[in-house]
Amino acid sequence: MSQRGYASNAPSGKPKTTQLKEMLNSSELEFIMEAHNGLSARIVQEAGFKGIWGSGLSISAQMGVRDSNEASWTQVVDVMEFMSDVTDIPILLDADTGYGNFNNARRLVRKLEQRNVAGACLEDKLFPKTNSLHDGRAQPLADIDEFSLKIKACKDSQTDPDFCIVARVEAFIAGWGLEEALRRAEAYRNAGADAILMHSKRSDPKEIEEFMKAWNNQGPVVIVPTKYYTTPTQDFRDMGISMVIWANHNIRASIAAIQGTTAQIFKDQSLLNVEGKIATVKEIFRLQRDHELVEAEKKYLPETKS
Amino acid sequence: MSQRGYASNAPSGKPKTTQLKEMLNSSELEFIMEAHNGLSARIVQEAGFKGIWGSGLSISAQMGVRDSNEASWTQVVDVMEFMSDVTDIPILLDADTGYGNFNNARRLVRKLEQRNVAGACLEDKLFPKTNSLHDGRAQPLADIDEFSLKIKACKDSQTDPDFCIVARVEAFIAGWGLEEALRRAEAYRNAGADAILMHSKRSDPKEIEEFMKAWNNQGPVVIVPTKYYTTPTQDFRDMGISMVIWANHNIRASIAAIQGTTAQIFKDQSLLNVEGKIATVKEIFRLQRDHELVEAEKKYLPETKS
Amino acid sequence: MSQRGYASNAPSGKPKTTQLKEMLNSSELEFIMEAHNGLSARIVQEAGFKGIWGSGLSISAQMGVRDSNEASWTQVVDVMEFMSDVTDIPILLDADTGYGNFNNARRLVRKLEQRNVAGACLEDKLFPKTNSLHDGRAQPLADIDEFSLKIKACKDSQTDPDFCIVARVEAFIAGWGLEEALRRAEAYRNAGADAILMHSKRSDPKEIEEFMKAWNNQGPVVIVPTKYYTTPTQDFRDMGISMVIWANHNIRASIAAIQGTTAQIFKDQSLLNVEGKIATVKEIFRLQRDHELVEAEKKYLPETKS
Amino acid sequence: MSQRGYASNAPSGKPKTTQLKEMLNSSELEFIMEAHNGLSARIVQEAGFKGIWGSGLSISAQMGVRDSNEASWTQVVDVMEFMSDVTDIPILLDADTGYGNFNNARRLVRKLEQRNVAGACLEDKLFPKTNSLHDGRAQPLADIDEFSLKIKACKDSQTDPDFCIVARVEAFIAGWGLEEALRRAEAYRNAGADAILMHSKRSDPKEIEEFMKAWNNQGPVVIVPTKYYTTPTQDFRDMGISMVIWANHNIRASIAAIQGTTAQIFKDQSLLNVEGKIATVKEIFRLQRDHELVEAEKKYLPETKS
Repeated sequence: MSQRGYASNAPSGKPKTTQLKEMLNSSELEFIMEAHNGLSARIVQEAGFKGIWGSGLSISAQMGVRDSNEASWTQVVDVMEFMSDVTDIPILLDADTGYGNFNNARRLVRKLEQRNVAGACLEDKLFPKTNSLHDGRAQPLADIDEFSLKIKACKDSQTDPDFCIVARVEAFIAGWGLEEALRRAEAYRNAGADAILMHSKRSDPKEIEEFMKAWNNQGPVVIVPTKYYTTPTQDFRDMGISMVIWANHNIRASIAAIQGTTAQIFKDQSLLNVEGKIATVKEIFRLQRDHELVEAEKKYLPETKS
Repeated sequence: MSQRGYASNAPSGKPKTTQLKEMLNSSELEFIMEAHNGLSARIVQEAGFKGIWGSGLSISAQMGVRDSNEASWTQVVDVMEFMSDVTDIPILLDADTGYGNFNNARRLVRKLEQRNVAGACLEDKLFPKTNSLHDGRAQPLADIDEFSLKIKACKDSQTDPDFCIVARVEAFIAGWGLEEALRRAEAYRNAGADAILMHSKRSDPKEIEEFMKAWNNQGPVVIVPTKYYTTPTQDFRDMGISMVIWANHNIRASIAAIQGTTAQIFKDQSLLNVEGKIATVKEIFRLQRDHELVEAEKKYLPETKS
Repeated sequence: MSQRGYASNAPSGKPKTTQLKEMLNSSELEFIMEAHNGLSARIVQEAGFKGIWGSGLSISAQMGVRDSNEASWTQVVDVMEFMSDVTDIPILLDADTGYGNFNNARRLVRKLEQRNVAGACLEDKLFPKTNSLHDGRAQPLADIDEFSLKIKACKDSQTDPDFCIVARVEAFIAGWGLEEALRRAEAYRNAGADAILMHSKRSDPKEIEEFMKAWNNQGPVVIVPTKYYTTPTQDFRDMGISMVIWANHNIRASIAAIQGTTAQIFKDQSLLNVEGKIATVKEIFRLQRDHELVEAEKKYLPETKS
Repeated sequence: MSQRGYASNAPSGKPKTTQLKEMLNSSELEFIMEAHNGLSARIVQEAGFKGIWGSGLSISAQMGVRDSNEASWTQVVDVMEFMSDVTDIPILLDADTGYGNFNNARRLVRKLEQRNVAGACLEDKLFPKTNSLHDGRAQPLADIDEFSLKIKACKDSQTDPDFCIVARVEAFIAGWGLEEALRRAEAYRNAGADAILMHSKRSDPKEIEEFMKAWNNQGPVVIVPTKYYTTPTQDFRDMGISMVIWANHNIRASIAAIQGTTAQIFKDQSLLNVEGKIATVKEIFRLQRDHELVEAEKKYLPETKS
């Protein structure tokens, strides 16, 4: 048992980067689940998921700031470090634009590698970014050549060959059509992207479907069905999607739960109606892997101190 | 409307420190609610609470580390800054032992004041601390004189006269009786503590009751009824308690919700059974006060960019 | 004597922001000196300077990164906090472009205010920036309207009316002429800038001279004579300059000294030829104000511990 | 050429940990030189040194705080990261007591490994520590068993077998004699320490000499001759010392240079008398490896942007 107090449940003990790369390239439809701090990352692993989505929206939300690069990139990396330290499954960071130009992006890649984060998803928008699900906000796109070179700079910069760069195409989000989406996806794939994330905020999968047909298996495609969540998952398999991101549901679950619990306690001036519905203090200790520290104290504290 | 995008709901626009001091000294029983990041702090304020408990257990838990000072004190202060930035009501930080000796503690006070945190609760244990609710772990206490001088150092160091130092007595937790609890409470009060937090991990309020009788209104007393939660709140009023801390229920609500949501999505490979039960993406945007940024963009971005 | 262990030598105990504002508006030519960490900031104050320049070049250099926003903005703010904590004189931060758009810039202003930094100098270039003294690197300028609105957003956002925004005009650096420099200076002044920093990398003050004539006292002007250092200081007075920044000479002094000392010790495998030429260990302790801690330990540690 | 812009001058491209371990165990007397930020670390490597001492005194001094754990351990680790990122030679961190108990110390080891720091030197004092060179300050020692177990916990925790733990014996500093020093050195070596650092603040090497005789080659010994600097280096070879630390001379060189330069400019209100004596701005750019970024911009920025 390691210092962290749990056995790895990662398949075959492979490096996290390799795990992520294999998921992107597997013939199965794979799923990764949002987390936004060490706690939720740990829960995602325990639930059985094979990978974690480090959501920019969720991380900014938990901090209390906006998803507009109000948190600095090192503050995001600090959260990634906590998440990575308590998990054995790969994390793909939602890295916005890479927080600047190619030089900022490749510096980020090195910092993520140091913290054992498996990949970064870069989107072709301008710094500071705007969340893609906003209505009526302009979503200016990056120059296609500049963004392709940014991807290339990141790929040239990584030291672990399996570190993954996912290129997120915001063409549909920005109101462009299939042609632009396809042109960008191809350019980014040619620049070295390990996968394309094709984003859409329609409530149906029409844009994604059209893209998948035109794309014709040029490489792995990742989707984020937050808005078209009613689409049966089998449809994604049929389209040939590689990976689905459940992008922000843990922060949303957390918000609802905290709002409900806080309101109840405020109203009641008592814990009675809440106690049975929430996790126990013991469960917190378990998630913190406190038992490992208990064992370690027996081993590493002299008799008189333990 | 401020840059943060919401009007203050703090009573009479008083400084946070003054708000906290007045709560401690009011004739009413007051309540503060746990938060562990900017998001939960914001929700606690919106629910109507007049103050926030910056729980050491919850903050460490969300990071994924143990409540044994595994996070550095500046990492805790960084979380406090996010929490304070999005709220108008006072935050009382659960500051463990002050993270070292008197010099570390008084340095902390200055850093909290800079970030507009209203008070710090210091406990009379040794660094690194052990969570008080653990079974069967030794809980060695600080020397009473050293801890009294630590409180005095903090009081001498604060620049805002209303910044509050709450002295947390761990005598009951450590297995000592009423006499030791009383001796410590009196010493800390004499050293300048604005209030005494008397902790107990019994499932009934017996220790607290005995203490309150013996204490005889020498100053404000704060309690944490996590374990004796079945005690009617009126009993606390009758005992003469000043403030109740609901200490860790938001992180526990969050854990249960994230575990449930993650498990459901993992099992279903679909969002269908989850979507209606969690907060909307729009609600995230609202909590991030995104509308203020929308307005600001109209004002501060030139036409061509907005 | 404060916790920090020294009496303030600031004139009349005025707030740092007010000190800086008065310096910018005084009829005297004022001087501020570069510092890049707490140590050098403290030395600048001890030397008698009335203000400090938090140089972006020097801060990035001491970190070992490039002056191209490789350090995150919060990493820069952390350095500012150390600098501000040990000084009573105002610090003007060389804040590059504000590290993004108007929203990033105004967020920075709030963070600087919390840390008692007196002002921010924003330059009309694009994020990530390029150092102005580079030969043959393109120096694209910000859109004049966007930058003016950025200044306005910062001024609207500050809570202390004396916090200073200095607008740095890079028109000459970017190869534009007097007309563009003047047009920008006027726009930024009208947008609320407390002063204009007119930069030039010529080895003579010709550009500055022309600007000052055309400017005709529309407001305070700050200069950085790193390249035209042979110009007699009286000339700057005659031109009507308000403030001179000695912009990077402490980091350059430090580099030369460290290179010399390290080379000597490496060659000698001995300290003998170095010992007499460098500060003593006692001088380090003095600069750290250790005597205050010695006194505090007598006061706040019980007998048995001190 | 790597992203960092320089070729490695490390011997045979070995991992930093292996380099440090080999230095400790080599038959030659080895030397490591103090650095306190990325800049000075880079200069130490360029001077030809084979290793770097991350001095606690120097790092706290540059921040402007005291060498009494006023900076948090993560703030120290952040400095280490900047230092490690720009160097290929090993860094041994002066890690004080490990910043708490065994659990804090082993957590530190993991964080240092992530940042490619080669080793940590732990001293047998209490947290928060007091600098060893202070006159008349009590220097209470850690319990010998507790400290031995702390070393064991660190050794058990490291994932790279070559990561080095150096155990610093403060017995002489605390006023104890040879017997206690020897007893501690043996205990720490038996607990797994890769080397013993035997500290002395006498102005002659008498204590060290006696220790070396009694020690009788039980393992590598490191010394810090700051106070007994007049001792000829050959004497250290004759005693059988493995490694000498030049512990704080770069910060002391920096202080003297900054004080001199600042005073001169303040007096002169001019740069004329300083310009020729300090490093050029070009030298700053060279140390920042700016040429690599120039090349990268040609490669990764589209034509219109470069």
